Amino acid sequence: MAPSAAPAAAPDSNPDSFQLKTKEPDFPEEREGWKGYVEWEHYPEKKKQAAEYLSNYKFPDCPEFQLGPLPTTNPILEGVRWKQYHYALGSTLKNIPSISWSYVLSEKAADMIHVLQFPYNGEPPRARLVETPITPNTDHFIRNHGGIPEIDPAAYTLDISGLVNIPKRLTLADLQNEALFPRQSNVVTIQCSGTRRIEQIREYPGDGDELINAPWGEGAIGTARWTGVSLKKVIKYCGGLKNPATAHLEFFGADTYFKKGQVQNYVVSVPWRKVKVNEVLLAWEMNGEPLPKIHGFPLRTVVFGYIGARSCKWLYEIRAIDGPSRAPVQMKEYLYYTPQIGKQNAKYSNGFSIQDMPVSSAIMTPVTMDQIVHDGTIKLRGWAYSGGGHWPERVEVSSDGGGVWYEVPDENLSEKYYYAWRLWEIDLPVDAEGWLDFCVRTWDNALNTQPTFVRSAWNWDLHVTSSCHRIKIYSINRSRPATAARLKWLEEKGIPILPITQPIELSLESDEDYDREMAKRQGRDPIE
Amino acid sequence: MAPSAAPAAAPDSNPDSFQLKTKEPDFPEEREGWKGYVEWEHYPEKKKQAAEYLSNYKFPDCPEFQLGPLPTTNPILEGVRWKQYHYALGSTLKNIPSISWSYVLSEKAADMIHVLQFPYNGEPPRARLVETPITPNTDHFIRNHGGIPEIDPAAYTLDISGLVNIPKRLTLADLQNEALFPRQSNVVTIQCSGTRRIEQIREYPGDGDELINAPWGEGAIGTARWTGVSLKKVIKYCGGLKNPATAHLEFFGADTYFKKGQVQNYVVSVPWRKVKVNEVLLAWEMNGEPLPKIHGFPLRTVVFGYIGARSCKWLYEIRAIDGPSRAPVQMKEYLYYTPQIGKQNAKYSNGFSIQDMPVSSAIMTPVTMDQIVHDGTIKLRGWAYSGGGHWPERVEVSSDGGGVWYEVPDENLSEKYYYAWRLWEIDLPVDAEGWLDFCVRTWDNALNTQPTFVRSAWNWDLHVTSSCHRIKIYSINRSRPATAARLKWLEEKGIPILPITQPIELSLESDEDYDREMAKRQGRDPIE
Repeated sequence: MAPSAAPAAAPDSNPDSFQLKTKEPDFPEEREGWKGYVEWEHYPEKKKQAAEYLSNYKFPDCPEFQLGPLPTTNPILEGVRWKQYHYALGSTLKNIPSISWSYVLSEKAADMIHVLQFPYNGEPPRARLVETPITPNTDHFIRNHGGIPEIDPAAYTLDISGLVNIPKRLTLADLQNEALFPRQSNVVTIQCSGTRRIEQIREYPGDGDELINAPWGEGAIGTARWTGVSLKKVIKYCGGLKNPATAHLEFFGADTYFKKGQVQNYVVSVPWRKVKVNEVLLAWEMNGEPLPKIHGFPLRTVVFGYIGARSCKWLYEIRAIDGPSRAPVQMKEYLYYTPQIGKQNAKYSNGFSIQDMPVSSAIMTPVTMDQIVHDGTIKLRGWAYSGGGHWPERVEVSSDGGGVWYEVPDENLSEKYYYAWRLWEIDLPVDAEGWLDFCVRTWDNALNTQPTFVRSAWNWDLHVTSSCHRIKIYSINRSRPATAARLKWLEEKGIPILPITQPIELSLESDEDYDREMAKRQGRDPIE
Repeated sequence: MAPSAAPAAAPDSNPDSFQLKTKEPDFPEEREGWKGYVEWEHYPEKKKQAAEYLSNYKFPDCPEFQLGPLPTTNPILEGVRWKQYHYALGSTLKNIPSISWSYVLSEKAADMIHVLQFPYNGEPPRARLVETPITPNTDHFIRNHGGIPEIDPAAYTLDISGLVNIPKRLTLADLQNEALFPRQSNVVTIQCSGTRRIEQIREYPGDGDELINAPWGEGAIGTARWTGVSLKKVIKYCGGLKNPATAHLEFFGADTYFKKGQVQNYVVSVPWRKVKVNEVLLAWEMNGEPLPKIHGFPLRTVVFGYIGARSCKWLYEIRAIDGPSRAPVQMKEYLYYTPQIGKQNAKYSNGFSIQDMPVSSAIMTPVTMDQIVHDGTIKLRGWAYSGGGHWPERVEVSSDGGGVWYEVPDENLSEKYYYAWRLWEIDLPVDAEGWLDFCVRTWDNALNTQPTFVRSAWNWDLHVTSSCHRIKIYSINRSRPATAARLKWLEEKGIPILPITQPIELSLESDEDYDREMAKRQGRDPIE
């Protein structure tokens, strides 16, 4: 999936060439100092009006990126439909795609793999992700569902509403007032449930929305030290909940999200059980710096051990409700189906909701299809993670597809945190040559481990590719005399061994050697 | 691999734009009435001279078609290098690529899959290949190693030379004289050892010469009634062999072949043991018609049960020799390596020579990635073959990757021949939905069956993909009420179910239904 070129120009993929079919819609900014924030959830009439505007258009189909090969462009996918949804809603939203992209360019590393240009989804290059246990902010993956609102922190407030005993509106200064709230700081891994989705796509395509089912590699995971206040303390400050046994806390993000012709803010929820153990942080700091705009500035939630989708960015309201949110992201997305469910029978009630993330891992170097000249060992590096209150205890790798496993030595695992991944590396003994199937599996502290094959955990929405990560490596073992001799000969002739697919345009054996060897082998035909 | 467009224009891929770097070479036609036939084997000096001409050029590398996706063009590959080899050798050979292509257009079906434009390699569309046990001449696969010589049958002779007691030159009339030779006619399947190579390429790329390792699908196999004389009778007519115990019969084809900068005619051999059981035919008739030019007119060998490479076209000489031919096609190609052999250590002596073909089979319809709406059974059609003196006795298919096998009913297998494939079809019971792994295996009369996975039989030169043929099918079972309801609803809304990857832009379940179903499922969260 090496990025190689700019995406082909798509029709109507810029706001100026897009043809409005109505008078220019007017959905004004909700608040002074907040740009790109249209409030939908409080105004059902406005949502209805926006849906009517959208119904005037036949937006392009989503691009077919599953049944054929994935584009080799970077961005891989553009998100033309998603841009047009914004263009169709008039001046407040039409520039959001280009504004958002400008934050990608200013806040993220130049060599990100742009899985989807808009809404922005991107992951860092494989090798770099496992260089440091704490992911630099510029490299941390981004999985946005809408554009990036620009919020003046001085104008920022957070509403705590719903079934709390004392609803409140808090400023950023309130939240950061240590006299009111003790500060909490944790190293936490956030993972998108789409991590490693390309493995499912390559073997068994599924639902093909370019945003919901973006074609992620192994980098939709990252680890940061997040600092803020525990949501539990804020709820206590609001006098506690009216319904703690069944309560969910519903998070409202200022970004605009589109779903099947409907418009809304980004809304999800987590149960009070999760909040009350201090595993939900309202964070304004990421690795000692203010949140980058693209990561939710000025305030986001960070939900430890859960799917990243619950870590709501550009948070403007937290509402205590009874039971899980009925907003579409919570009720209708991030569902985990049994393998016989698909387009022919999928509903919202026959998949279960992805909250806790299971144990998983990935080999980040080498990458699949690499052809490696080595001297009997190959170094593998990767990550291992378990959510849901667990942590990786053991990482094992195999060079034979999962028959024989080698344990990663304990000293080659990075620090053990309750809520974060562990990086690992191993010099794996490799004697065999030719194509080998390398794979990794991780055991967490609850003895959970990973399904064996992609097929073992395939599901229609292509979530949670937790099966053993497998790569194909072509092994060229220089410690073998025949291979050493061939490599030396090729070097003398100036012929590269790689790529292996390019044939050698010289005779591979002299006639004399052939005759001597064939005599040992009793010739081509039997003697009688 | 659906053909979709013309190949991109390649530089110097036509004789007029190719820049000669020497004076125009002059390698004249060998004989009156034979066009495009340059004799190399009898003139070592001429071979040397041709190699010197070729050494002036840096020909293009072979196209990379293995480590990336296969082109979706038709022709899939063009063979620019191979064309240029001909252009570089002057007037006798430079028009051969275009003349050969004109025979493709006039003698083969318009919808052939052109695996390689020159030297021509092509196979028929999958479904049609299994419509008739006898393959029409227009559909029979072609695997040529050079251009097509045009031979006036009146000027045609065949030399029988070497270690025969009475060397002879025979005309076509001699061979067809039933007073001299009894006529023999057999239904024989010819199979290229590259059949189904794309399965190996897709999983584990290997040697990447576009001709030698052409990316064949499942159609590099065909069956015809061949008529001619048994080579055994011709050898007897020449007084028999001087060395019957160790003799090979070496076949010379009038096409020009290029190998690592050397020029030669197409030369291969088969042992006398094979000839003396009347399994080598000198054929001038294919399905009751004169051989098509592209199939070797006026005379070719047909070697029953062997790799197709031994069935030499445009045959002009048969030489009795001691042991196998030392010509490169026999000695240096069509070798079968153990999986740890590759570019780093492959020689000619450490692979064994492919002669007899093993048992194999293929599912021709449906094709992999098909998404099928059905009522509880899916019809599969395909071929089954075993070479080496065997024939298919039983065909079994599986819809679960090889756990449970269903036997194809005997009445659904085509006629049983000693030397030919059997076509088969079955209505396979399919209850499950979603992605299913279908596969087929065949048992021959010697109880040979097929390796389980591509990996089980992978080899560096990607020959003889005899592993169980596997396809992925997405099953939509209309006999299930939930699926029937979904299909009806989509039909009413005018929304196609296919392709499955296009999301449904309507809500999949009403809120009322969701609440009722979720109540049955005890909600999202536990009760305490």
